[in-house]
Parts: sequence; structure tokens; C-alpha cells
Amino acid sequence: MDRWRRSFLKRGIALLGAGGLGAASAGRADAQGPPETPPWMKSPGAGMSEYGSPAKHEAHVKRTGIGSRPGTTGSGASRTPLEALDGMITPSGLHFERHHSGVPDIDPARHRLLIHGMVRRPLLFTVDALLRYPRVSRIHFLECSGNSAAMYGATPPTQTAGQAHGLVSCSEWTGVPLRVLLEEAGVEPNAPWILAEGADAAAMSRSVPMAKAMDDALLALFQNGERLRPENGYPVRLFLPGYEGNMSVKWLRRIKVTATPTMTKDETSRYTDLQADGKALMFTYPMEVKSVITRPSFGLGLPGPGLYEISGVAWSGNGTVARVDVSTDGGGTWAAAALTTPALPRAITPFRMSWKWDGRATVLKSRATDDRGASQPERERFIAEHGANAVFHYNAIHAWAVQANGEVKHVYA
Amino acid sequence: MDRWRRSFLKRGIALLGAGGLGAASAGRADAQGPPETPPWMKSPGAGMSEYGSPAKHEAHVKRTGIGSRPGTTGSGASRTPLEALDGMITPSGLHFERHHSGVPDIDPARHRLLIHGMVRRPLLFTVDALLRYPRVSRIHFLECSGNSAAMYGATPPTQTAGQAHGLVSCSEWTGVPLRVLLEEAGVEPNAPWILAEGADAAAMSRSVPMAKAMDDALLALFQNGERLRPENGYPVRLFLPGYEGNMSVKWLRRIKVTATPTMTKDETSRYTDLQADGKALMFTYPMEVKSVITRPSFGLGLPGPGLYEISGVAWSGNGTVARVDVSTDGGGTWAAAALTTPALPRAITPFRMSWKWDGRATVLKSRATDDRGASQPERERFIAEHGANAVFHYNAIHAWAVQANGEVKHVYA
Repeated sequence: MDRWRRSFLKRGIALLGAGGLGAASAGRADAQGPPETPPWMKSPGAGMSEYGSPAKHEAHVKRTGIGSRPGTTGSGASRTPLEALDGMITPSGLHFERHHSGVPDIDPARHRLLIHGMVRRPLLFTVDALLRYPRVSRIHFLECSGNSAAMYGATPPTQTAGQAHGLVSCSEWTGVPLRVLLEEAGVEPNAPWILAEGADAAAMSRSVPMAKAMDDALLALFQNGERLRPENGYPVRLFLPGYEGNMSVKWLRRIKVTATPTMTKDETSRYTDLQADGKALMFTYPMEVKSVITRPSFGLGLPGPGLYEISGVAWSGNGTVARVDVSTDGGGTWAAAALTTPALPRAITPFRMSWKWDGRATVLKSRATDDRGASQPERERFIAEHGANAVFHYNAIHAWAVQANGEVKHVYA
Repeated sequence: MDRWRRSFLKRGIALLGAGGLGAASAGRADAQGPPETPPWMKSPGAGMSEYGSPAKHEAHVKRTGIGSRPGTTGSGASRTPLEALDGMITPSGLHFERHHSGVPDIDPARHRLLIHGMVRRPLLFTVDALLRYPRVSRIHFLECSGNSAAMYGATPPTQTAGQAHGLVSCSEWTGVPLRVLLEEAGVEPNAPWILAEGADAAAMSRSVPMAKAMDDALLALFQNGERLRPENGYPVRLFLPGYEGNMSVKWLRRIKVTATPTMTKDETSRYTDLQADGKALMFTYPMEVKSVITRPSFGLGLPGPGLYEISGVAWSGNGTVARVDVSTDGGGTWAAAALTTPALPRAITPFRMSWKWDGRATVLKSRATDDRGASQPERERFIAEHGANAVFHYNAIHAWAVQANGEVKHVYA
């Protein structure tokens, strides 16, 4: 624990000890000894299990905002309940989902990955073959380009933090550097693009610049220690750190080295950014620097005046979160929040700040800055620059209104 | 990816490209186009789910070596299948278990934590009160002091890596620094110990030095992003980074500040280290520097000569893994393996090395060194110093014999 953090905590303690929390929910014991023996100490508990599950009392913590296009069951999304979690890692069971035609039921023994196109020798891999290559592990966030799309709307959404902003999750991804396989296949000199195609019924496909493929792209085989979950691309997915989520093509079956982008349906009719002037941006890859306060938030209000911890998550597709500033007066004044260390590149970075609420209505904001110096704009400026026609790449400063009754809701302020 | 790693991979590729892998399991495609459309691309897949599960084809990846004392179902252990995993994080469903009287079925609304003894004001906390305190997140391993106990035996065990060494796991733990609550309670000057007691039927209890309690001890509430799993101490556990696992008391209900160690049954009749001379060591807290090669390993042999990745995990309760050396000739020569970066203090650090097996019988070894300069001893020296009566704190260099037929087994060499 660094010195700054110690100092922060010490100041927190002084306030807590002064009764902010004690009065509300803790209290002096009568010092007669330990509390009465609870029933669960009176007989032996359950035995070991082969694969554990969350506590039954936490069954309400589940993916949220599940929705699919009309007439379909798997062409949609589910979201991570950010407000119920804490830390950098998202449990795999709660990683957000975004599928274009559901989760395919792939037999790993029959799955193949083809690398072809502008290469000296096309290669066809079984999963067992991929598992013999050298691997690397890295902790990275994945964010759907459509995360926070509701914030483009004319009125702020009546949604929880997870419902509005939960198309982002963070895992430890382990796999084979794509560069290794491309070099084995012998990419033709100066071939500038690859096409990546998934083995779902939508054959979701995206064009990826060769520079990214050769830099830090992974063929991910493991997520948070174990093999990929089906909804995250089992048995193998592409993973492009920092890029919009759908480019990290799940259930990867084909990589074609090409001279131009392929202009697939997924990069022409979808995943383009319609601007105010009617033109659309294509190939907008990185997810920009962003943050969300997850507590307090809609549905997690404040029971009364007193000391609280404001906490949230920040990330940047272009680098490492360098600082997060928090305002408790609607943007009038800002102070640096404490970041979880180490802050890792292109990973979720939790932030925290102690706050004594006086019981009056106010607005909370967070503003992340990355190590490239990029910072979140206020919403007004973001919309002025990008228009309100788009649904992707929203990264403006986010505001929660705290009402005098302790309720919290999204606000444009 | 650092330069060293790139260089390592490039060397790996050259060998792979030369046919080591290509011949065995990959191969040239006929370049007529993508492989035949698999059945799972012909109709929409499954929809989103509220809480995900591993792929059905990975159902064999489960906790292993489950055993309980005669006449009990929950006084025993289950182990992490290390050989099936990759990365720093252990999925919570596969975290090892060690219970002294099973997993209590605790109602979090009725659970209480008492802090009393040599304090100015005893405090009684509900879980909701604990959840309002400032939290920190850290990635740390947890290792049972009895991990690898079979290696004290006269003959090497016929076990997988997980069965023999899987009482170690690594998670991101998020919780309240214990120091915050002790300072709120007002610890009497120079009070040197605390007692920590669990709410299981065994009331598992350990004495902990105040210096550790005030340094980096946590009251952990979250594991890998979500609330603790029942078998890991839901709703709250003590977490003592680097110390033997049972001291991180699960289901924590009581902390008593004391003038002396309490000499509980769990630190007198158990969790002492019987030495060769009949004397026993008590209060041996940190888990020493250690490593295990997880692939190849017993049950995961080599199908034939060729190029392989040797991989494993290393950790140290005293600091950060600084290097891992691997020998493929029974300890005659050693070379530094690549470590996953960043290597975090008191966290599992995966290591990897490329190896071309010539098909002859040999012995693989790994030797970890931490940033304090401590290194694993050879087994012969370890046993000479500690005797073979003990069952705890085994951390000698571990050896796998690779036979000419590709089978792998534990060996003392």
C-alpha cells in the first residue's frame, strides 16, 4: 500500500471513527464476549465440490439488460452488472455478451482455423495444434463499441450502471500471439490487411490492419485461467487489445491475408459511426478513455447523510489510465481519486474516493485521463463534435444526480 | 510484449516453421478456400444467459484430489487442476478448498464480525456496515501449508500436477484493510497479537501478529470481481498475503486483540512443523518461494519428439518472483524461463520455455528465485534440513521424469 493510500485511509478512519458510519450501521458491542453462536456453527457444513458457484444469497447478481432483436433469441447482448462488482477482473460468468446469431455449439475436435490469402503457405490448424504453440497472458478489458449508446439519447436513461454501461468487462486472456502463426504461414511483404471470420451462423467478419495483427493480437484460448467460455468464443477467439469488441472475433475459423479491407457487412452496414453531417466514419478501432462511477448509482442510493466511498471503473483502449478526477459538485471542483495499483495497459482500473455527503442534492462526475494525455470530454462538447446520430464510441463524462432523498439517477449536466 | 519476449517467440517460430509442429498436427490447406461449413454455422446458436458456465467439452476440468477425513464429508480438501489451466488468475469455481468442518451455510443478514479484547471500544459489524468502508484490490496467491505434502514421502506420488501441488490458487481479492477497523476500535498501545476466528462448526482459529494485521491484512469481501464464494469464506474472510492458507480465516466472525498468542488447537495440535529431531516449529507463517512445471506433467505426456512449450507456475510468500530457471537435463544445465509480466508480489507468476524434445528419457526441473534472493533447494538438501516427519511448507525443487515413450511422472532426482 503506497504512502498516499495510507494517508487517504487514515483520514477516512478519523471520519468514520467520528460516527459517520458507527451511528448508521456498526455499533459498540456490549463487551460481554462474542455474539451468540449462530446455527451454522452447530453442525458440520457442506463438503467440497468439483466446480464452485456463487453464494445463493448473491443470486441477484447476474447479467443485466438482456435483449435480442425481434424474432431472434441470440442476436443481442447481455451486460455486466458493474454496480455489484469490485476489482479489475470480471468473473467469466458475468462477462458481457454480444452475439450476432447466438452462441454456436462447437465441437472442439472438429473445429479448424484456416490461415490463407496472401501467404506463402496456407495453414489449417486443429485446436490441439494451436494448444502446442507458445502462449502469453495479459489482463485487458473488452468493450462493445455500442456501450453507453443510450447516452446519445435526448433524455438520460433510467438505468443502472450495468444496464447503461455494462458492455465492458475485463479478463486475463491467454493465447498464442497471432504474429507467430502469420509468420509461419509466410505473409507476403507489405500485405496490409487481414480478414477475421467467426464460426457463428452470422459468420461475423471484420478487417484488421496487419500492423495490429503483428503487434499485440492474440488467438485467445484461455480466459481467467480456464479455457474460453462458449459465449466468449470457445474454442478460440481473436483478441485485439483496446479495439472495439466485435473485432475480437469469437469462434475464429478463418484469417485471410488481403490487399484491402474486405468491406464485410459488419463493417459497412454496422459498426460505422454516423456523424451529424450524414457522413459515417469507418474503421474507428480504439475504444477511447472512459470512466463510470458504479457506486453510488441508480438503484444504489444513499440511506442518509454520512461518509461514503465513491467508486468506479476507468479504462482506455489507447494505453493506461493515468488519473481519474472526481467531482462531487457537478464539475465545479475536481479531486484525484485513488487508483488500484498496478494500473495495467488497456485494463479496467478501479478508482475510489472518500466522500462525506451532507444530505443536499448534488451531481457526481468522473473524468479519466490516460497516459497519452487523452481525457473524457463533457457530454455537451462530445455531442457537438460527434452529433447524436451515432450509437458507437460514446465516451463523454458521465454524471449521476444525487437527490436530497438519497436516490441517484443519470443526468445530463 | 517486451523485446526479450519477442526474441524468444521469434526463435520459437523458426523452429516451429521448420516442421516440428507442422508435421505433427497442423498442415497445409489445399488453398481451395475455407473448410466445409460446419453444422453449427447453419442455424442460429444459443441465446444470452444470466450467469455463464464452462464449455461442456471442458467438463473434465474440475477440482481434483477431493478427500475428507474418515466419517466426515467436509473436513478435507479439493485441489486446483493446475495442469489444465493457464495464466495468473484461478477461476473461482476451481479455487482449492480446505475446510475443517465443511462450508457453513451463512445468512449474510445475520452474520456479525466482532472486534474486541485489548481495544478502547469493541465494535460489532454487520456485513452491510463492512461494505461501506473503503476497499482495496490486490492479486495474491493462497497456498495451503500442506500443499505438496506427498513429496515428503519415501517414494514419489503417482499424481497429476494438480493432485500433488494444487492446494495453491490465485485470485484478485478486494476488501477493507484490517488496519482501518483496528484503528477505529482503538487498539491498546503495543498489543502484539490478534486472534481470528471463523464461523464454521470447527471455529477454526489462528493467532496473527499485530504487525501483519496492521500491514497488508484484508477483510476480503470480493474475489475475482464478485462477492466471495461460500467455500472461500462468504460473506467475509481474513486475507493475509503470503501466509499459510489456513491463517486467512474464512467466514470471519471474531477478532480479539490479545497480549499473547492464543495457542488454539489449530496452532498446537495442527499446523506445526515436526522436525527430524522430534521438536516442532510453531508460527511458521510465510509460504516460501516455489515453482511447479504443469505441462508436461503426469497425465499430460508427449506424443512424440518435437517442439513443446514447458510451462508452469511460480510464487513466493515473501515477495515477487524474480526468475525461474528450468533444466531439461535433470539439473545439469539451467536456463531462464520467460515470466508473465507484470510479475506481482505474492501472486502466481506463470513461466514458459520453448523445448525441442529429442525423444530420449530425461528429467525436467524448475527452480524459482524471489526478489529477496531466496531460491528453492534440491529435495535432498530440503529433507536433510527439515526431515521427513513434517507435512507442511514443502518447497523443494520439483522434478518430472520424461520417459522415452513420452510418459511423464514424479521423480526424486
